[in-house]
Amino acid sequence: MLTKTAYGKSRVRVVRVTRRADRHDLTDLTVAIRFHGDYDTSYTAGDNREVLPTDTMKNTVYALAARQPIESPEAFGLMLAQHFLERNPRLQHVRIDLTEQGWGRIAVGGHDHGHAFVKQGPELRTAAVTLDRARTVIEAGVTDLVILKSADSAFSKFLRDDLTTLPDTEDRILATSLTATWRYRDGRTSVGSTWRAVRQTLLESFAEHKSASVQHTLYAMGQAVVECVDDVDAIHLVMPNKHHLPVDLSRFGLENRNEIFVATDEPFGLIEATVAR
Amino acid sequence: MLTKTAYGKSRVRVVRVTRRADRHDLTDLTVAIRFHGDYDTSYTAGDNREVLPTDTMKNTVYALAARQPIESPEAFGLMLAQHFLERNPRLQHVRIDLTEQGWGRIAVGGHDHGHAFVKQGPELRTAAVTLDRARTVIEAGVTDLVILKSADSAFSKFLRDDLTTLPDTEDRILATSLTATWRYRDGRTSVGSTWRAVRQTLLESFAEHKSASVQHTLYAMGQAVVECVDDVDAIHLVMPNKHHLPVDLSRFGLENRNEIFVATDEPFGLIEATVAR
Amino acid sequence: MLTKTAYGKSRVRVVRVTRRADRHDLTDLTVAIRFHGDYDTSYTAGDNREVLPTDTMKNTVYALAARQPIESPEAFGLMLAQHFLERNPRLQHVRIDLTEQGWGRIAVGGHDHGHAFVKQGPELRTAAVTLDRARTVIEAGVTDLVILKSADSAFSKFLRDDLTTLPDTEDRILATSLTATWRYRDGRTSVGSTWRAVRQTLLESFAEHKSASVQHTLYAMGQAVVECVDDVDAIHLVMPNKHHLPVDLSRFGLENRNEIFVATDEPFGLIEATVAR
Amino acid sequence: MLTKTAYGKSRVRVVRVTRRADRHDLTDLTVAIRFHGDYDTSYTAGDNREVLPTDTMKNTVYALAARQPIESPEAFGLMLAQHFLERNPRLQHVRIDLTEQGWGRIAVGGHDHGHAFVKQGPELRTAAVTLDRARTVIEAGVTDLVILKSADSAFSKFLRDDLTTLPDTEDRILATSLTATWRYRDGRTSVGSTWRAVRQTLLESFAEHKSASVQHTLYAMGQAVVECVDDVDAIHLVMPNKHHLPVDLSRFGLENRNEIFVATDEPFGLIEATVAR
Repeated sequence: MLTKTAYGKSRVRVVRVTRRADRHDLTDLTVAIRFHGDYDTSYTAGDNREVLPTDTMKNTVYALAARQPIESPEAFGLMLAQHFLERNPRLQHVRIDLTEQGWGRIAVGGHDHGHAFVKQGPELRTAAVTLDRARTVIEAGVTDLVILKSADSAFSKFLRDDLTTLPDTEDRILATSLTATWRYRDGRTSVGSTWRAVRQTLLESFAEHKSASVQHTLYAMGQAVVECVDDVDAIHLVMPNKHHLPVDLSRFGLENRNEIFVATDEPFGLIEATVAR
Repeated sequence: MLTKTAYGKSRVRVVRVTRRADRHDLTDLTVAIRFHGDYDTSYTAGDNREVLPTDTMKNTVYALAARQPIESPEAFGLMLAQHFLERNPRLQHVRIDLTEQGWGRIAVGGHDHGHAFVKQGPELRTAAVTLDRARTVIEAGVTDLVILKSADSAFSKFLRDDLTTLPDTEDRILATSLTATWRYRDGRTSVGSTWRAVRQTLLESFAEHKSASVQHTLYAMGQAVVECVDDVDAIHLVMPNKHHLPVDLSRFGLENRNEIFVATDEPFGLIEATVAR
Repeated sequence: MLTKTAYGKSRVRVVRVTRRADRHDLTDLTVAIRFHGDYDTSYTAGDNREVLPTDTMKNTVYALAARQPIESPEAFGLMLAQHFLERNPRLQHVRIDLTEQGWGRIAVGGHDHGHAFVKQGPELRTAAVTLDRARTVIEAGVTDLVILKSADSAFSKFLRDDLTTLPDTEDRILATSLTATWRYRDGRTSVGSTWRAVRQTLLESFAEHKSASVQHTLYAMGQAVVECVDDVDAIHLVMPNKHHLPVDLSRFGLENRNEIFVATDEPFGLIEATVAR
Repeated sequence: MLTKTAYGKSRVRVVRVTRRADRHDLTDLTVAIRFHGDYDTSYTAGDNREVLPTDTMKNTVYALAARQPIESPEAFGLMLAQHFLERNPRLQHVRIDLTEQGWGRIAVGGHDHGHAFVKQGPELRTAAVTLDRARTVIEAGVTDLVILKSADSAFSKFLRDDLTTLPDTEDRILATSLTATWRYRDGRTSVGSTWRAVRQTLLESFAEHKSASVQHTLYAMGQAVVECVDDVDAIHLVMPNKHHLPVDLSRFGLENRNEIFVATDEPFGLIEATVAR
């Protein structure tokens, strides 16, 4: 018995230079396409007659990118999804995942240069478009947005069992590499400005929160977004706890006044939740 | 409104040396723990009173590893899951993911050395144990098992649209980095020998198959496992197509008799399915 | 015979929070220490009596970071190098490599927040301090500064042999992930402002250059630095050519007016040189 | 002033399938080419007339791989180096770096399959060929050979200063990811069998050594190679100390009889030396 089949193409990288009168605009996307449909005989009988090659999916990304400037990852994903759904009767639903690498303009003599860019990061803008014959779902997001606060973060009065050794702390570093994904009420919203509003709300609420835990701050950030950004219905946040451990300097006869930390990659706490209206 | 909450600890690395009379045994695991339960007030009110710290989860891995030799990732995961479920009334279900790094013994003078090891790879053995108050699900798997066949692989007679440029081929390299996850009928099966039987069946069926596509070979491999290994109920296979493209040597006045390929990492096809009895 | 011995500690990560009246300052460094000296008997005879443990090198990073705010990676590296050289008579020369992860302040209501930060990147500031009993060498640098220009870049009229297939181009994307390392005339220069001046000069000269090749632009950038920044004696630049290949859209009946590119990671050209006064 | 110029192509990946009567042989190489010569005007004046494009270097790898089966990375590197040196009068010396990914045959019914392979790893075989108008240097090596011993490893009686906190240990885990590079006396040696002999000598001497430190074992391994493998003149070993730290179980009322360790990636000790006859 065959279930949960899917196939597609991942890591299709397209860079589009749009040549305006006075400047170039740069769009840098990595696209993944995923087909879900009635392709069982390709598995069970090696019958490829209804199988669109993943190489053609890749070609489609480049051909559609050439048609017109890319307004947003969401709009481009939607165009791709519709293209595939219209032409492939066996396709039941298609998902397009997009990540956009941001580039800033190099400043020369205090002015933005017209065709020279510097990579921004590590954060990436993301979008996901899922289409079936009845329904369109558009999600937007950000990933690898690394944020840290060195005050207003505690973790104390937690559950203790006989293996608990962590001391209470009222003042720690809180750092995370945020991945957030949100769903717009209406796919036709002005996605660029909304995206920037969500990002800014996430940053501000993180900065301002009196944190009792990662969970506590995650919820405050999600709440701020659904309260402040009208177009957002629900937001899912994933927040790995990038632990910064205070160094025990007493071994050297020194005091650590919460100033010296070792940054660690593993192990790490991992907290997630969805906040909806 | 708060939904889909989860929290836990990832990348807990434990190496256990079990000291036998004549030799040491080495177990090298990386563990992730994930709690799903009624922890909403930790998000909404910063109330940590029922929150077991992720640091304690980490401690628990080390404390339980010290109790007795680790028989298998599945057995160790089950022990951890039961430990957490018994002691945390708010916990509804818990998932433990384990990856085991294999080490072989260094051969000295043709004999396996008792306490010197060499890392095997890149493949990793995996296990996942999910427990709630009623049910236990044990999955086993392998990841990053990179396999390649240089004959008996075709891809032809596929669907063509106006953007299709891929030529038919009756003889190509087929390569993938296999991730497979399977479910045992009975959690109490002899998991070590079964794991090896599944792995060997995957390798043999890959080698022997006359492939019409990645989909076709994926299904043949899954079928071979459910047919040949009694204890396995269903298996999920994920097979990225690690493309090896024939180099056009005609530009240099040379012929490529299907001998010279460029290995590429991106873009890549991605095929997956579950095969069940 | 034993030659070219060295030992040390790498990837020592230290984050320092300096608590000012109105704000926190954050310094995020990764440090590597390397001892070169007369330690031969530790290799040949297992005699550790003169071997300072690499664990102590790590401790020293934390202890010295606690003494006072870190003014610059260069100053901190120099302090570490002097500390080790003074206390270890067997040590002939010591090298300290430092990379600094930049963090920007989160803006809240248009104002920089006092203790909330967002990671900048992907670029990293680097420094290297090498000390022996007679001499101090201080190098500064930047790595992973990814820059791209979509005009004023050609590559043509190059040498052709019978295996050359690359067409001449007068208009291509030029992109690189710059690593630059420079030497100051005087270790006591105001390193923060000089570092920023070098970085800005690199960016501006890259943006403004009419490029005939990566080599050509590399030299222009190096020349600009030694001409414009007085304190810099010599600069070494490493510029991998991050190829952006125009997509052949003619296969789809479309024209590529130099707008649609595929970004590739491998293979890549690699160009380097030192430009000195 | 322009110094230390170099240019070339990196990450050229070539897979060669050699079709024998009864089986296929698979060679999987990644090649880097580096030209050093009189190319200054390409930097200073943008004059490309003597610049062989790095794209042509890439083509050359594929064209030469097509000529005949690849006997060894050393032989293929030498062929490439000679090709470039002969045809490029401005070239003073050229360096070819090669890494070979090993593939084993899949066993089916106890017999090696003729055209199905499984990736071996994580170790890679390496070679470097450097040629100038007068001289040929051939180096061979291995990288990412990860080895661990759980007995016969101590680190004690080392130098202590006021920041030393590491306790003496007579029984620890010693683990490293070995990179070794060696030079043959004679470039025309039977490189395949010699390579295997060096690798086996490294493994055996690591396993058998009573280690007082990483330095001590590194030297023993290097000595064993120059003593046991006639063709090797000198060997350079780089051994990062992949620390496995015993977990303090006393906090849980348990004893750690040197059985439970946490594997860490950073910070790490780094030891290297050359051992010559």
